[in-house]
Amino acid sequence: MIKTPYLLFLGDAPDPLAAKVAQGIRDWRPENAVGQLRLPGCKADLKLPDMTLEEARGAGAQTLVIGVANRGGVFSESWMQVMEDALQAGFDLAAGLHTLLRDQPPLVALAEAHGRSLHDVRLPSVKYPIADGRKRTGRRCLAVGTDCSAGKMYTALAMDAEMRRRGMKSSFRATGQTGILITGEGVPLDAVVADFMAGSVEWLTPDNDPDHWDHIEGQGSLFHVSYSGVTMALIHGGQPDALVLSHEPTRTHMRGLPDYPLPSLEALRDTALPLARIANPDCQVIGVSVNTAALGEAEAVACLREIEDRMGLPTVDPFRQGAGRLVDALPA
Amino acid sequence: MIKTPYLLFLGDAPDPLAAKVAQGIRDWRPENAVGQLRLPGCKADLKLPDMTLEEARGAGAQTLVIGVANRGGVFSESWMQVMEDALQAGFDLAAGLHTLLRDQPPLVALAEAHGRSLHDVRLPSVKYPIADGRKRTGRRCLAVGTDCSAGKMYTALAMDAEMRRRGMKSSFRATGQTGILITGEGVPLDAVVADFMAGSVEWLTPDNDPDHWDHIEGQGSLFHVSYSGVTMALIHGGQPDALVLSHEPTRTHMRGLPDYPLPSLEALRDTALPLARIANPDCQVIGVSVNTAALGEAEAVACLREIEDRMGLPTVDPFRQGAGRLVDALPA
Repeated sequence: MIKTPYLLFLGDAPDPLAAKVAQGIRDWRPENAVGQLRLPGCKADLKLPDMTLEEARGAGAQTLVIGVANRGGVFSESWMQVMEDALQAGFDLAAGLHTLLRDQPPLVALAEAHGRSLHDVRLPSVKYPIADGRKRTGRRCLAVGTDCSAGKMYTALAMDAEMRRRGMKSSFRATGQTGILITGEGVPLDAVVADFMAGSVEWLTPDNDPDHWDHIEGQGSLFHVSYSGVTMALIHGGQPDALVLSHEPTRTHMRGLPDYPLPSLEALRDTALPLARIANPDCQVIGVSVNTAALGEAEAVACLREIEDRMGLPTVDPFRQGAGRLVDALPA
Repeated sequence: MIKTPYLLFLGDAPDPLAAKVAQGIRDWRPENAVGQLRLPGCKADLKLPDMTLEEARGAGAQTLVIGVANRGGVFSESWMQVMEDALQAGFDLAAGLHTLLRDQPPLVALAEAHGRSLHDVRLPSVKYPIADGRKRTGRRCLAVGTDCSAGKMYTALAMDAEMRRRGMKSSFRATGQTGILITGEGVPLDAVVADFMAGSVEWLTPDNDPDHWDHIEGQGSLFHVSYSGVTMALIHGGQPDALVLSHEPTRTHMRGLPDYPLPSLEALRDTALPLARIANPDCQVIGVSVNTAALGEAEAVACLREIEDRMGLPTVDPFRQGAGRLVDALPA
């Protein structure tokens, strides 16, 4: 569990996209973001107050989150200086980068000396159990994609936000580094050892109130041969009551696999649902989430309508339209 | 790669079953087993020559394989003495236990001093790639089970043995600790990090001659919620040309999951084959392997005939009948 709220470190981001982790936190957990800290030349701006470390501490910030990708696999001199100063000023540090905080001796020494924590959210920090398949109380929703990076995390965050807005009981359950930094907790599923994958998802989504929904962040795709095992573990460990089909309509092949065509939404439904029913016989496909970012407004509307007619399921782009219709479709 | 041949250490095995790893090596790679080393009170006997370390070295043994389970999570005084003597006598050590050789300081010190290797085959020793899904040359066969521990490893070993007997090109590809000790190499798949599972299977089954078959050791089951992700990675990383359905006909529920019924062989076929065809559109289900150890001879014959009639596939118990009919069924 990472202590909130955060000061978001944007470093010397060369463009706004480099700071997409910080952007995700600002968009989805604005209450966790008291301000931003930028270095000279930073091209990203979250429209949060620019703060020094001292100002952010004064405003209650507990953790400096590295919300930007670094370049070249090492931390620059200027980043190291900020992180060292932050530990001395009373901050914990959190990052989801391949370059690990714990591999930087000056940071380890300062964290020890000052009693601070270093959170490398790409690595598991828990010894997860082997899954036992026991039926848990509470409800769970999982987005599964025709491909990787089709909008599954966004869909889960949007459904969670919509349910909270309506005063319903809901949690977003993070399974990747961006999601973990957004909420401050979760399972870095792609770094979990094979035998414990499904168990880590059970651990992440424990017994809960009967009317509480976990919105589990999806990973990979059953149709993506590099990562399908991770997706399978999510479906069986998560024992979802509801599946949302996620799709990006302009892809011409599976991400990173030029020889693999995309499956149809029908094939995704017919593959994922029987597998999900092994763990939860009551599971239903409740809707389709389409990432229409690459389409103009008219094209997007036509695309959504075509899919909705064809699949007979509520079909939305949660970014354009919100996730209200998906939340409406959840079983009572 | 573990150096062969082996001296098989049976320790003070309380019964033959405790030495099943050694038994597997003796059964499937007798040319790798020059002798056995037993401590006073040992209740297992592989009918191999009893040898001292010196005698085994004289007979060419390169590695002392711990072919027996230890008790209580520590190595006893008597085991440690044998292992230390072995390192000094010129042996490497290999084991697949939860208790790791590398966690024993005296063994580490002696191995370093004498230039010997300690092989803990439960842990990956290779940095595996992420799967790229590229179609590889050569052929691959994978057994998938209605449940875990249904005879998948035995089926693969028996098919490999039968092909070698016929002078055909064949490799057994180990994915678990027993299999790795039998052949001296492989991938401990259940200990691989999630993102690299499918890639490790690709690495294990590389390009080969067009008429060469890899018999890949199966793991878990698509229907076993604790381990289905591992099975999925085997199906997509292995890109099998042929699937064998494995079944144990007396199970009343999934292993370790009392609330989960076993799927039918039809359900296994209809689930596994479409998933396998994502990675290899030419994949076929070629036969059924039934573990009838719990049945009498007449019952076993009736069970096999019933399944063969129902499924329309060659159906054998490779232990009772050999794997000849499964090999016959492999596509040309």
